[in-house]
Amino acid sequence: MINTLFLPELRDMIATGKKEEMREFCAALHPVRTAEFMEGLSSSETWQVLRCADNEQQQEIFRHFDGDKQISILEQEDRQEVAGLITKLAHDERVDLLGEIDEEIGAELLELLPAEERRDILRLKAFPEETAGAVMTTDIAKLDESLTVGEALQELGRQAEDLETIYYLYVVDKTDHLRGVVSARQLVSAMVHPETTLATLMETDIIVVDSMEDQESVAQTVARFDLLAIPVVDPERRLLGIITHDDVIDVMREEATEDVQRIAAVNPLNQSYLRTNLLTLSWKRGVWLTILFFAALLTAFALDGYRDIFGRVDAAWLVLFIPLVISSGGNSGSQSSTLVISGLATKDIVISDWWRIFRRELAMGLLLGSLLGIFGYICAVILAPSPMAALIIPITLLLVMVCGTTCGSLLPLLFQRLGLDPAMMSNPFVAGIVDILGIIIYMNVARALI
Amino acid sequence: MINTLFLPELRDMIATGKKEEMREFCAALHPVRTAEFMEGLSSSETWQVLRCADNEQQQEIFRHFDGDKQISILEQEDRQEVAGLITKLAHDERVDLLGEIDEEIGAELLELLPAEERRDILRLKAFPEETAGAVMTTDIAKLDESLTVGEALQELGRQAEDLETIYYLYVVDKTDHLRGVVSARQLVSAMVHPETTLATLMETDIIVVDSMEDQESVAQTVARFDLLAIPVVDPERRLLGIITHDDVIDVMREEATEDVQRIAAVNPLNQSYLRTNLLTLSWKRGVWLTILFFAALLTAFALDGYRDIFGRVDAAWLVLFIPLVISSGGNSGSQSSTLVISGLATKDIVISDWWRIFRRELAMGLLLGSLLGIFGYICAVILAPSPMAALIIPITLLLVMVCGTTCGSLLPLLFQRLGLDPAMMSNPFVAGIVDILGIIIYMNVARALI
Repeated sequence: MINTLFLPELRDMIATGKKEEMREFCAALHPVRTAEFMEGLSSSETWQVLRCADNEQQQEIFRHFDGDKQISILEQEDRQEVAGLITKLAHDERVDLLGEIDEEIGAELLELLPAEERRDILRLKAFPEETAGAVMTTDIAKLDESLTVGEALQELGRQAEDLETIYYLYVVDKTDHLRGVVSARQLVSAMVHPETTLATLMETDIIVVDSMEDQESVAQTVARFDLLAIPVVDPERRLLGIITHDDVIDVMREEATEDVQRIAAVNPLNQSYLRTNLLTLSWKRGVWLTILFFAALLTAFALDGYRDIFGRVDAAWLVLFIPLVISSGGNSGSQSSTLVISGLATKDIVISDWWRIFRRELAMGLLLGSLLGIFGYICAVILAPSPMAALIIPITLLLVMVCGTTCGSLLPLLFQRLGLDPAMMSNPFVAGIVDILGIIIYMNVARALI
Repeated sequence: MINTLFLPELRDMIATGKKEEMREFCAALHPVRTAEFMEGLSSSETWQVLRCADNEQQQEIFRHFDGDKQISILEQEDRQEVAGLITKLAHDERVDLLGEIDEEIGAELLELLPAEERRDILRLKAFPEETAGAVMTTDIAKLDESLTVGEALQELGRQAEDLETIYYLYVVDKTDHLRGVVSARQLVSAMVHPETTLATLMETDIIVVDSMEDQESVAQTVARFDLLAIPVVDPERRLLGIITHDDVIDVMREEATEDVQRIAAVNPLNQSYLRTNLLTLSWKRGVWLTILFFAALLTAFALDGYRDIFGRVDAAWLVLFIPLVISSGGNSGSQSSTLVISGLATKDIVISDWWRIFRRELAMGLLLGSLLGIFGYICAVILAPSPMAALIIPITLLLVMVCGTTCGSLLPLLFQRLGLDPAMMSNPFVAGIVDILGIIIYMNVARALI
């Protein structure tokens, strides 16, 4: 059945209403692949196939459609059937989805859901974006601590199909306070002693996150402790939900992309590049470009103060090296700031390392500056009126690169120290600052040597 | 027992040889936390505590030590005891570790391991770095397809403690060919029918990766299919091992950091920033800085060709705007290249989108260029001899920014098309190219208008 030309057969099944065949199609392959085979269908055709699928398969396939198809199915198909689908979706995903569809339709669908599901959706919706609460799911295996291993396994067998993950079982008291956690592995190992109670088996030193914690720090905790899922609790340590490994992977990708965009001075996009509309995109880029533009304007005014130097006939050659001086400083600064920003993001670097970092970057600037200085001198001899005057270039390059590496490394640390996002001290921003300093250094070295 | 001042007590236990207390200490907390409490101990002190721990805890705590401590324990402590520890470590991690210690000691330790473990290590070591084979682990639950659910659960109960993950059970034939996969969830749900065989329960449309596949593409597959682990097979589809979710998270972090470093024109570091020695660091940065330096030198020669223009007294003011023109082009180019590179990395963009991307970036360049052009004209009027001459600035800015956005977006696509890493078309590289084009545009616009 694996066939890239599957659309005609699917359309034929739809036209002739072969429900059983459509059900089988939905069950035959991995849901991700099934979703891919249905990519070519319109959203109403898709729904005609999908509504024949079994419960579990229906939601698994649906969650792998792209966002547009999901939204148009929710908005356009039979409300009652769609409400049925919504009850089956993962609790975290359906909240995101309902947030994206037409508000009126969303309200109608909410009305059609059982009261408990509706309350759950409204509760999750209340958490601010990018917090643990907004990412968590509430379909978890909660078990009472008085259960035995045998009872727990039976209970789990009953619930397993509806749960997003069964790999950790959360043990709670009567009022939902988290008391411990038992892994499926421990439960299976303990099968030979079915009378053991969960209370004796469970781990009590549990890693939890608060529902208001930022999603990036949640992802870091999960990675650090190699967890499959992490419980989310309220300040009274009541279990609210869990965040599972797949959500963590999504968060990490999202945050990595955001960091890269910030480093290049683009305000993080909420959607993929091609879906972001042009006005939003110009806004997210334009803000920074304008700020950087005004920073760069300062170079014009800085240069203006040195007209007495490069305005002289014997010093006009200095102009030729302006772009070179500026870009060398900017590039070394970008390298330093990026290394520090990514080191801070992976926690390889902490603020208290600043003195070590400063010494390293100073050494790096001296080393790389000397290297480029030598190259620079060779070229300057060709373009400058005398070998003595040509010395301006290597001296400037050395100073500018030291300035680039030290500013580039310390500025993100300073931002971190001030509680700001170090990635805001982006490459272009560092380069902009180094540009101005570079011009001032260049012209003063020239003044001293001419 | 949770106490940051735990070191005195630990040292006291070591001095008085209280083995039972040390065993209890190792069992009391989450292994990550236990490892943290031992950070202050020397590696020989650490080992004196750790050797008292139970098997499972011993390896769990050990794997959370930092690399230096792990290596010095392996190199300096009793060979026989250390060999015992090695047999307990995750199969993928111990191979990495043995690759880092002194070769002679490594060979001695290998001799002390049981033959089967030794063969396993040598087999894993043979895979090239950053391939699926090098990341996978070989301690997996392989089950015969003729087993029933009841038998499988019992078998699993026996093996559970030694396996890295029990969340998927891999069903193989007599010669290890992968036939299907059963999740722990399915097994638990099927407990009510213990006579069902695995052959009827298992999924047969399995997502696998080849052992030679690149780790980045493995991570993408795992993320796409939301898997907890992915089986690694040879070309005959024999099951070699699995890659688990925690390794995938590590790979994703590593790759994200590498991408960020490439974008800033630093050859990816193999270690964290502070551990990389200065010479390696200068090499990884110096290579690119030198290449970029020679690219930037072209700007000097390009400018040299226009001495007739900026050498004129009435045109000397043009020099003031050189840094501004260059940095505006470079910044818009960096933004575009970063958006395209990160879009390619997350698969939001594919090469065939190039025409759409080109049109978007053209529009973006015109829009942002006009905006900055207006700002630029206002400032140019102040510094230029006449409002007419000042027009050079907005016209140049518009053209340079269009050039920046279009080159910045198309160059990474071109690299991808040529089979190269698009992240090599780094921000400074794009900026370097746009710098030269910027100078040429600027001087020609000036020539036309003066």
